[in-house]
Amino acid sequence: MVSGEFGYALVSGATRSRGRREHMVKVGVLWVSLIAACATGCSVGARTASNPLPSWNDSPSKKAIVDFVAKVTQTGGPDFVPASQRIATFDNDGTLWAEQPIYVQAAFALDRVKALASQRPEWKELQPFKGALEGDMKAVAATGERGLLEIMAATHAGTTTEEFETIVGEWINTARHPTTKRLYTEMVYQPMLELLSYLRANGFKTFIVSGGGVEFMRPWAERVYGVPPEQVIGSRIKVKYEPRDGWPVLLRLPEADLIDDHAGKAVGMHQAIGRRPIASFGNSDGDFEMLEWTASGRGPRFGLIVHHTDATPEWAYDRRSHIGTLIRAFDESPKRGWTVVDMQRDWKLISPFQK
Amino acid sequence: MVSGEFGYALVSGATRSRGRREHMVKVGVLWVSLIAACATGCSVGARTASNPLPSWNDSPSKKAIVDFVAKVTQTGGPDFVPASQRIATFDNDGTLWAEQPIYVQAAFALDRVKALASQRPEWKELQPFKGALEGDMKAVAATGERGLLEIMAATHAGTTTEEFETIVGEWINTARHPTTKRLYTEMVYQPMLELLSYLRANGFKTFIVSGGGVEFMRPWAERVYGVPPEQVIGSRIKVKYEPRDGWPVLLRLPEADLIDDHAGKAVGMHQAIGRRPIASFGNSDGDFEMLEWTASGRGPRFGLIVHHTDATPEWAYDRRSHIGTLIRAFDESPKRGWTVVDMQRDWKLISPFQK
Repeated sequence: MVSGEFGYALVSGATRSRGRREHMVKVGVLWVSLIAACATGCSVGARTASNPLPSWNDSPSKKAIVDFVAKVTQTGGPDFVPASQRIATFDNDGTLWAEQPIYVQAAFALDRVKALASQRPEWKELQPFKGALEGDMKAVAATGERGLLEIMAATHAGTTTEEFETIVGEWINTARHPTTKRLYTEMVYQPMLELLSYLRANGFKTFIVSGGGVEFMRPWAERVYGVPPEQVIGSRIKVKYEPRDGWPVLLRLPEADLIDDHAGKAVGMHQAIGRRPIASFGNSDGDFEMLEWTASGRGPRFGLIVHHTDATPEWAYDRRSHIGTLIRAFDESPKRGWTVVDMQRDWKLISPFQK
Repeated sequence: MVSGEFGYALVSGATRSRGRREHMVKVGVLWVSLIAACATGCSVGARTASNPLPSWNDSPSKKAIVDFVAKVTQTGGPDFVPASQRIATFDNDGTLWAEQPIYVQAAFALDRVKALASQRPEWKELQPFKGALEGDMKAVAATGERGLLEIMAATHAGTTTEEFETIVGEWINTARHPTTKRLYTEMVYQPMLELLSYLRANGFKTFIVSGGGVEFMRPWAERVYGVPPEQVIGSRIKVKYEPRDGWPVLLRLPEADLIDDHAGKAVGMHQAIGRRPIASFGNSDGDFEMLEWTASGRGPRFGLIVHHTDATPEWAYDRRSHIGTLIRAFDESPKRGWTVVDMQRDWKLISPFQK
């Protein structure tokens, strides 16, 4: 989950929220924490063909999911929900794929700096670009908010939407995770892929609601998650319609349009979906309002928080982490009736390549 | 089609675009033109069960639609388009339902002024509310942009999203067209309902892309058009997430977030859909950029403009109209290969109640 910091840095540009400046300090730590330990390999439990969630252990978390789906799909039952209202929303970073040791979109930004450097010779001597090019994350962090916004503007704005889609598509096909050396699209959570499929098989329409950039996710979300572009909601920058050589383009501007994090997730869902989900899945405090908004509707509701307890092969983190900080959503889950997934206890494996 | 003027007045609030102020002058005329002539009754042609577009005459317009659908759905054909990419977008006012003699949403705003008047006794002596209450549209128009924005803020902001949904839902179930005395939801175009169904039956995902307010359309669009809330795109005001008595609400603010008209339609489609439609349907210059954006993509594309040529029982209007002004989109349709529907020539009937 992009818990505010990077999602904010990503799209803020000209509109700077005073109250969130303090978060930017944490971003420095994010950029420094490029390296983290990860060992691969874990045992895979038995699965049966009739089991829709084969990578889930038979724990209370799985039971809560299956029970919820059973009751909302039981025609004539007291908790039946028509298929058209079975909206489920999923956070991305830390919920559907790994967000450690660096948000994937931050890795993309750093790679873009390198790719663009030949056109910008002045970057060799200009921070934060110099630091980004030399892998000196301390130097990047030292430039603070200004530096991060400069990197984001240089790497995420100034292209047309189609050019950016191509850039992201080519990058995601080749870029690899810094420690596992796997493609980022392999660093997805197998149990969550099964959950997406299970919900869709039961008439749910699945959406992604991420603090990450919507145009960073759409080029590959359908292939990787089965979620089409029109069901991907994320932070976004403004775009401008203009003719170019007689053909219209949408030009990406260095100005935030929506920060789809915390309360922004409720706003983003309202803008794009227009009705309240009945189930939401997240992993950090940036998802709190998404779950709260979902859970406070009438009728049966389901909220779930993925708790990163599995240090091997994943990363164990929660309230002390600068990425995916999980405090309030964890502490309030019991009284709100939200399910907390303990990755180590509830999942048989983490990634598809462990199968 | 909300061709800029009212859509703008609807959501502008605090963000006032200098360049569109001139449009506001026209709004005065809009508010004055509350009464227009309309006689009902027209003959219904023969229909066969196997005909998917029974209210369409066998004219070139119908052939263009059917030919397009045939080629993009022909598996293995040179113009085949996978179902996931069959996105079709429809303007609402003047394309799916009548926009004369007043935008339905403007009628809603006037009715809201009356409904709220008992709580606002000062309105009896305060323009533009005095004029709205007394039916003196000249007095309303005389207050210009300021007055219209005051009406929009008073009638469209200040509630929660759920309260507004309820208000719209109750109004649309009882409010009647000023001249035909029909429910507004009966003032839809039967041939376009058939077209929506025909496209969906051929694997298309149908969206509404309107200058009208998205939260004004979502409460009834699924029932009337078969388009679910998450496929309705429109102008929108900002909303704020906040707790109220311990429960979160989204509060509607008197500030524009998106004017989904002209170039704003391309922006709105990009934000909400994230991929380019292959077919778009409109009726005025406010739809020009929607059709242009759609048509300038690669592969087979379809653009259609509804031309209001049928004065009885509809309204005949185009370039001289302040509502649904049609000049550029009409003039450029031939060279751009867009189909222009002549309502009188191409449609056997207008509304479902004529069947």
